[in-house]
Amino acid sequence: MAPKNAFYAQSGGVSAVINASACGVLQTARRYPDQIAKTYAGRDGIIGALTEDLIDTSLESEAAIAALKHTPGAAFGSCRYKLGAIHEHRTHYQRLIDVFRAHDIGFFFYNGGGDSQDTACKVSQISAALGYPIVCIGVPKTVDNDLAVTDCSPGFGSVAKYVATSLREAAFDVAAMSRTSTKVFVLEVMGRHAGWATAACALAADRQGDAPHVLLLPEVPFREDRFLAKLDEAVKRYGHGVVAASEGIKGPDGAFLSAGSADAFGHAQLGGVAPVIANMIRTALGYRCHWAVPDYLQRSARHLASATDLEQAYAVGRAAVEFAIAGKNGLMPAIRRLSDEPYQWDIIEAPLHQVANREKLLPAEFINADGFGVTEAARRYLAPLVVGEAYPVFKNGLPDYVRLENTAVPKRLAATFSFPT
Amino acid sequence: MAPKNAFYAQSGGVSAVINASACGVLQTARRYPDQIAKTYAGRDGIIGALTEDLIDTSLESEAAIAALKHTPGAAFGSCRYKLGAIHEHRTHYQRLIDVFRAHDIGFFFYNGGGDSQDTACKVSQISAALGYPIVCIGVPKTVDNDLAVTDCSPGFGSVAKYVATSLREAAFDVAAMSRTSTKVFVLEVMGRHAGWATAACALAADRQGDAPHVLLLPEVPFREDRFLAKLDEAVKRYGHGVVAASEGIKGPDGAFLSAGSADAFGHAQLGGVAPVIANMIRTALGYRCHWAVPDYLQRSARHLASATDLEQAYAVGRAAVEFAIAGKNGLMPAIRRLSDEPYQWDIIEAPLHQVANREKLLPAEFINADGFGVTEAARRYLAPLVVGEAYPVFKNGLPDYVRLENTAVPKRLAATFSFPT
Repeated sequence: MAPKNAFYAQSGGVSAVINASACGVLQTARRYPDQIAKTYAGRDGIIGALTEDLIDTSLESEAAIAALKHTPGAAFGSCRYKLGAIHEHRTHYQRLIDVFRAHDIGFFFYNGGGDSQDTACKVSQISAALGYPIVCIGVPKTVDNDLAVTDCSPGFGSVAKYVATSLREAAFDVAAMSRTSTKVFVLEVMGRHAGWATAACALAADRQGDAPHVLLLPEVPFREDRFLAKLDEAVKRYGHGVVAASEGIKGPDGAFLSAGSADAFGHAQLGGVAPVIANMIRTALGYRCHWAVPDYLQRSARHLASATDLEQAYAVGRAAVEFAIAGKNGLMPAIRRLSDEPYQWDIIEAPLHQVANREKLLPAEFINADGFGVTEAARRYLAPLVVGEAYPVFKNGLPDYVRLENTAVPKRLAATFSFPT
Repeated sequence: MAPKNAFYAQSGGVSAVINASACGVLQTARRYPDQIAKTYAGRDGIIGALTEDLIDTSLESEAAIAALKHTPGAAFGSCRYKLGAIHEHRTHYQRLIDVFRAHDIGFFFYNGGGDSQDTACKVSQISAALGYPIVCIGVPKTVDNDLAVTDCSPGFGSVAKYVATSLREAAFDVAAMSRTSTKVFVLEVMGRHAGWATAACALAADRQGDAPHVLLLPEVPFREDRFLAKLDEAVKRYGHGVVAASEGIKGPDGAFLSAGSADAFGHAQLGGVAPVIANMIRTALGYRCHWAVPDYLQRSARHLASATDLEQAYAVGRAAVEFAIAGKNGLMPAIRRLSDEPYQWDIIEAPLHQVANREKLLPAEFINADGFGVTEAARRYLAPLVVGEAYPVFKNGLPDYVRLENTAVPKRLAATFSFPT
């Protein structure tokens, strides 16, 4: 059979290592010229397919592709855009098929989280539903670590390393200042519904009394009185208190403490719960309080990526292509943990329909009795994911990140597609 | 003459490298046993002297002292506490003399910014005013880079490297997401009155169109209409916009955009201007906007310290002791720039009275014509300060920072001092 072209795209919130997955896909695809001719990347995710805005990655140098391994963001652009159901949005799928056919695309690799795997899952159905043969493989990515089936998600380990390191550093700061100045520090951590990144802050503590003193997990309803009592106890005992608060904490009524507008997936766009908590502390306890909201800094901090995370991100990209070459379809490479210590893992097959639209929250056995911390089981799970440093190249004192040429593939279709902005 | 003991303390907001200055002081003092017997550190700055709460650094191992070079925060505790004038607060100075005499202290090293150098300057006057002989040397430190006389301040180069790196990374993120999601990112940067750290964000840009697209410097009165027009132009041209905003930006009326409570030095405690700006952008321009306030993360990020900054921080600590041994008094080692490229510097003597209470703002020739960026002269000044990486040791995936024993020197005075908390 003549080789087919492949389509690869990045979707959803980006991470420090999603480009390492891209590197894994592209380098591996280049090793199978008899099956995969060229790999076209979608500019801005699935939108690139719908609008026939394809990037010819074969025009990028080996060095540029290799440099993706140490470059944050999404080299081809990402999107927050979810395909509707096939039977309701048939024109969108027909358009995808028109583009795929025009560019002889036989492989579809989609790199993203739970919403993006839903897109991958739907595309995998077009062979059967609409008669266009295409091999569809998802590539996992989410800083939230909330993907189902896989033991952990590429992107998460680096966020975990960033927030635990940053919290440890800020705790040294506040401990030094607490006599006459700031007594409490609040770090706001990403994680819309799942508290994985907030839980990872616990890794900053090595011994009794170390920060963080209070975790505010989205899985645990926030009770102001209990929180203030817990924090006050820490400040009285240690002279200062450090709080790691998930952006997604909710009161007993289920309402976000800090609600904002909604994103294109219909999720509330959060951010800014730390100042709310800080005001609460100042008002009720009278402590001088500082707060930080690192926001995008935490998920784009390639300078502090976890080597373990980086290796896994690359491996799922490579495995996705190997699955496709082996004739598999409708799958996502998932990470399976074989042992905690020494940390061992391999890659297994996860059917896309088991991954799409699922959210894996912190299990109850990872949350301690009072709800303000994590258990030893959680620490055992989290600890290996942050291990290892994988510094990018620096130039003139700053990380030297690659920007690809991103040359467009000439359009072949007369019809255009109006993407609803 | 019999050797005397030395007093060393850390004051004001801490930094990623103030402990490297401590390391320079302590390692150098140990090299002059004929002049300096033991070095006692003040617990929590000058408060340790007033309350006779001294730490015997001679009990710390060589390895622990060496590890200060890669540990953020202030190993002996810091304070925000300013001594009053000698003639008005004579009892405080008499108390200092009682403590110094009881512990045979003949050298006073005080490590901090402009307010702290004022304390050092006042202590240097007690020999003449109150007849107690003491050699007093300041050690420069401030992440704000606003100290007079010295070309740059230890602590600043690392903040500059952190904010420029973080902004570059976040800009890769927002550029990838801008098609369907966030179009504008606002990074809030420390610097109460001086825009040095905000200016350093400009180093993130290598070529035309690179982020940051707008700098909001505290030296330039904030005009909402002009800012929005400038940002909108960037978003229209590049598809996204990145803003670095000083925490201290003020409107044309001189009022902070985000005012808070006052700290112990009487300065407004700021933070939270980024969400104010973000709301302004959403309301006026309708762009989806993310913002980050790294707060303490930027000044405690030892994991991303500038090797140049680290070297200078150590050098001023060493020079302070060498000045004292050479019989000098009432001085602060200052950094003098000899050339931009290759970057060359040495250390000169700055009289404390020329440093105390001064604030060095961004000079007019460093701010570009429209006030939203910096000039080439500013880039030439800033560029060498962020050069070089100096990673801490990592253990289990996180930086392995040292905690000293901090063993108290037995008190010798019957009288106690009530520190006004």
